[in-house]
Amino acid sequence: MKKSIFYHAGCPVCVSAEKEIIELIGKDNLEIVDIGTVTTRILEAEKAGVNSVPALLTPSGQVLHLNFGASLSALKA
Amino acid sequence: MKKSIFYHAGCPVCVSAEKEIIELIGKDNLEIVDIGTVTTRILEAEKAGVNSVPALLTPSGQVLHLNFGASLSALKA
Repeated sequence: MKKSIFYHAGCPVCVSAEKEIIELIGKDNLEIVDIGTVTTRILEAEKAGVNSVPALLTPSGQVLHLNFGASLSALKA
Repeated sequence: MKKSIFYHAGCPVCVSAEKEIIELIGKDNLEIVDIGTVTTRILEAEKAGVNSVPALLTPSGQVLHLNFGASLSALKA
């Protein structure tokens, strides 16, 4: 299976969602990207349809926004 | 693994999220509940912390709201 990408920014909501997603999908099926730190990947996330973090980009290209931690615009500010 | 419960209400956002979640977690690990139809389970979802659908209640008791389809209050109206 192609990996899903979990975008987060280290916020408490992100950390909690990350824990659940790892539990459900398995770490091996995930690429975990902290766009709070690796800001060079914000644009890529945005292009994929990510509006806020935490978010999961599935192998089929759909974005699942998981709860709400921070908007992408806040990360760029 | 204990099952996760996927609460939805048949809305387009719900249907799309359901497809992704089945793909990621597997149908065998999911109980899928349409609280738009089975309104007797709205209270249970609410007690678990579900504010809107689609939402996934994980085996650890955490709620992941996946995108936004409809608020629970709208379903009760």
